[in-house]
Amino acid sequence: MSKRPLKVALLGCGVVGSEVARLMMTTGADLAARIGTNDEYEGIELAGIAVRRPGRVREVSIDPALITTDAMALVKRPDIDVVIEVIGGIEPARTLLLTAMENGASVVTANKALLAQDLAGLHAVARRSGVDLYYEAAVAGAIPLLRPLRESMVGDRVKRVLGIVNGTTNFILDRMDTTGAGFAEALDEASALGYAEADPTADIEGFDAAAKAAILASLAFHTTVTAADVYREGITEVTSADIASAREMNSVVKLLAICEIDAAGEAVTARVHPAMIPRSHPLASVREAYNAVFVEAEAAGQLMFYGAGAGGTPTASAVLGDLVAVCRNKVNDGHAPTVAGYADLRVNSMGQARTRYHISLDVDDKAGVLAQVATTFAEHDVSIQTVRQSGRGLDARLVVATHSATDADLAATVESLRALDTVRDVASVMRVEGD
Amino acid sequence: MSKRPLKVALLGCGVVGSEVARLMMTTGADLAARIGTNDEYEGIELAGIAVRRPGRVREVSIDPALITTDAMALVKRPDIDVVIEVIGGIEPARTLLLTAMENGASVVTANKALLAQDLAGLHAVARRSGVDLYYEAAVAGAIPLLRPLRESMVGDRVKRVLGIVNGTTNFILDRMDTTGAGFAEALDEASALGYAEADPTADIEGFDAAAKAAILASLAFHTTVTAADVYREGITEVTSADIASAREMNSVVKLLAICEIDAAGEAVTARVHPAMIPRSHPLASVREAYNAVFVEAEAAGQLMFYGAGAGGTPTASAVLGDLVAVCRNKVNDGHAPTVAGYADLRVNSMGQARTRYHISLDVDDKAGVLAQVATTFAEHDVSIQTVRQSGRGLDARLVVATHSATDADLAATVESLRALDTVRDVASVMRVEGD
Repeated sequence: MSKRPLKVALLGCGVVGSEVARLMMTTGADLAARIGTNDEYEGIELAGIAVRRPGRVREVSIDPALITTDAMALVKRPDIDVVIEVIGGIEPARTLLLTAMENGASVVTANKALLAQDLAGLHAVARRSGVDLYYEAAVAGAIPLLRPLRESMVGDRVKRVLGIVNGTTNFILDRMDTTGAGFAEALDEASALGYAEADPTADIEGFDAAAKAAILASLAFHTTVTAADVYREGITEVTSADIASAREMNSVVKLLAICEIDAAGEAVTARVHPAMIPRSHPLASVREAYNAVFVEAEAAGQLMFYGAGAGGTPTASAVLGDLVAVCRNKVNDGHAPTVAGYADLRVNSMGQARTRYHISLDVDDKAGVLAQVATTFAEHDVSIQTVRQSGRGLDARLVVATHSATDADLAATVESLRALDTVRDVASVMRVEGD
Repeated sequence: MSKRPLKVALLGCGVVGSEVARLMMTTGADLAARIGTNDEYEGIELAGIAVRRPGRVREVSIDPALITTDAMALVKRPDIDVVIEVIGGIEPARTLLLTAMENGASVVTANKALLAQDLAGLHAVARRSGVDLYYEAAVAGAIPLLRPLRESMVGDRVKRVLGIVNGTTNFILDRMDTTGAGFAEALDEASALGYAEADPTADIEGFDAAAKAAILASLAFHTTVTAADVYREGITEVTSADIASAREMNSVVKLLAICEIDAAGEAVTARVHPAMIPRSHPLASVREAYNAVFVEAEAAGQLMFYGAGAGGTPTASAVLGDLVAVCRNKVNDGHAPTVAGYADLRVNSMGQARTRYHISLDVDDKAGVLAQVATTFAEHDVSIQTVRQSGRGLDARLVVATHSATDADLAATVESLRALDTVRDVASVMRVEGD
C-alpha cells in the first residue's frame, strides 16, 4: 500500500496564518522527519487554506489553487487529518472546530477567546471524537507554557501563576516608565511601531490578558475557569502620576495576569489588573512587548518562562510544534494527553482575593489628619505596612502601603478615604504584587 | 471486571527518591484524578522500592514491606507498569532500565549520565518494546525544558542553547563574585550549605553539565551527541583575578553549557566551560544554585526557562510529571512522542567552535610591545575588538577583547603570546559569551 501525506487545512491566512504556511513549505522536510512515518503516512501536505478575502493573501509562495472561501467545506473534507485555526474570535471558529473534530480531524488552534469561553467543552468533543486538541500558541506566543502546565508540572500542585501575557500593554507601560510619556502618547507609539492594533481595545482593556488568565487558571488548577470568571481591569486609567508613584517606591507598573488557589485547595481566583512590582523582581525587567510568566508550585518552587509573546513568526513556531505533535500521534497511534478538569473548584470574586494597595493621598496639612486616615484603615480591618508623610505648603502628601487584605476591604477603605473632609484627592491607587 | 491501580517500582530512595515516594503517598489522589481512568486501570500504587541499604531509608511514611535490595527482581515483576529510576550512574541503572523496558514497563529516569551516553539506544529499546521513556528531571531539575524541546519547539529550528545547568558551580561562582572569595573558600561554603557533594568532582569539573549539554544538543538538533562529544572545562582554574577581570568589564563569570548548530545545519558543537557574560545579560542575574537556559530558535526567537535546577523536591516534581504522563498514556492507550534522532549531523570539535576571548597580559612597559602583541593576533587571523593598556611601574597590563574566531586560532594565539619575551605573564584568559 502506498503511503500518503498527512493533510492539513489552514483556517485563516493573516499575520500568523501566512507564517504557518510559509514555514510549512520551507521546513516541510524537517517537519516530516520529526514526525516519522508508518505503514500509512509519510510527510505532511498543506491541503487547503480558508480565507475571507482571497485577494488579501500576500504570501507569494502559496499556490492559489489551495485557497478557498468556503471554510466549512474545507473542514468537512474527509481527507483532512488536521485543522489549524488562526482566525480568532468565537464564531465561525467554534462551529468550524467542532465540525472538524466531529468529522475526525485533530485541531491546533491559537484562539484564546474561544478556549477561554469553553475549554472544557472543546476538550469533551475532542475526547468523544478520538482526536487531539492542542493550543500552545493561544497563550504567550512562542513561549512553551501550556504544555509544561498540561504535562511537565502535572505531578505537582501549582499554587500561583503570575505573568505578563500581553505584549501591547507591556510595551505601553514600559514606554511610560522609561520615557515619561503619558498613556495616550505611549499608545500612539505602540500603534506606529505595529505593537498595537487599529482597534486596541482587546489589549488595553485587558480582555486579551483575561482570556489567557482563564486558560492558565483552568490548566494550572485542573478546573473550569472562563473569561467571565476573570476580574479584569485594563491600563487606560494608569496615569503618569501612578508611574511616578511606582518609581518613588523603586517599582514599576505592569499589567499582570494572576491565578491563585487558596491554601485549602478549594477556591481559585483569576484576575488581570495593573500592579506595582519591585524593580528587583524578575518580571520588572521584562521590557517592550516581551512576555514572561512565573509559575509557583509546591514541589518545583518558582519557575519562570520568558520570550516573545506575540508576532506572526513566534506564534507560528508554537502552532507548528503542536502540528508536529498531532502528526506524531497519528503516526504512532497515540493521543494528546487529556486535560482532566476534574477539580470542580469554586471561583472566588475579586473582592475575596487578597491583595495589597499602595495609595497616595493629598490631604490638609494639619494635626490629626494622619490619625483620621489611620482610623479609616483600621475601621476596615486593613493593616498599614508603611506610611510616608511629606508637607507641600498648605497640603501634604500621604503615601500608604498596606499589608495584605481582601480586595473588597481595600476598595472600601479607599472609598471611605475619599469621603473624608481632610482628604483633598486620592492621587493614585495601585495594587502591589511580587514580593 | 474490577479495576486495578497502575503499579510503580522506584529504584533508589535517596534525596530524590524519598521525595518521590513521599509525594506519591501524600498527593496520590490528585495524581490519580489527573491520570483519569479506563475499564482496566484506576489510580496508582507504589508497589516496590529497591535500595542498596534498607536501613538507610529514613522517610518514615514508607511501608517497610515495600523495600527490597533486589532491584532486578523488582523490575522483572510482571505486574509493574512503570519503573522510576533515581539511582544515577551507568550500571546497574542501564541494565535495570533495559530489562524493565524489555519486560514491558515504561521508564521515568533522572539519570543524566546514562542518557548522555546512549539516548538513542534507550529510545530504540523503548520504541521496540512499545513503552514510554521520559526524563524531564535529568536536566535542570524542575524546570520544564526537555518536554518543550521534545514537543513544543519541534516545529521550529533551534539554533542555540545557552544555559546555566549546574547549581553547585553557579553557587560557587556567584559567591566568588559577590564576596570576593577564592575558589577553595567558595567551595567550602557550598559544601557547608549542602550545595556541593562530599566528592564535588562531577560538578566542579563540569562532568554533570557536559552530560546535560549532550542531552540538550541531541534533543535540540535531532541528532546524536554523547557526553564524550562535549568539550568540557570545569571551574577549578577560575581565579579571583578572572572574576576581577570580568568585573572590570562589567561582566560576571558563569559555567555555561552551549550547544550550537552551524548556519548550514550540517554540524553541531556542544561545550561546557566558564565564560564571561555581561551583567546586563539575563543569565548574569541567575544567582546561587538556580538554573536558567536560553533557547534561540529561528521562528520563536529567544526563550528563557528559569528555576530550581536541583534538590530533592524540585527534581521529584519533574519525575512525578513524567509519571503522570506515562500513566495517562497507559489509560488512554497512547504513547510518548518518539524522539527522532534522524539528523545524523557531524559533531565539531572545540577547536572548530567560534568563540571570543578576553585576555589580560602583564607585559614590559616599553615601546613596541603593543605592536608585537597585535602582530601575534594578526598572525593567527584573530581580529582584536578592543585593547586597553595601563602602565603599572616597570610593567604594563594589556587587556584584549577579540572578535569571534575559531577556538583553535584563539588558543594558538594565547600560546604564541606566552612565548613572547615581552609578555611576562598571561594573567587571565576567559571566553566571552552572551551578546
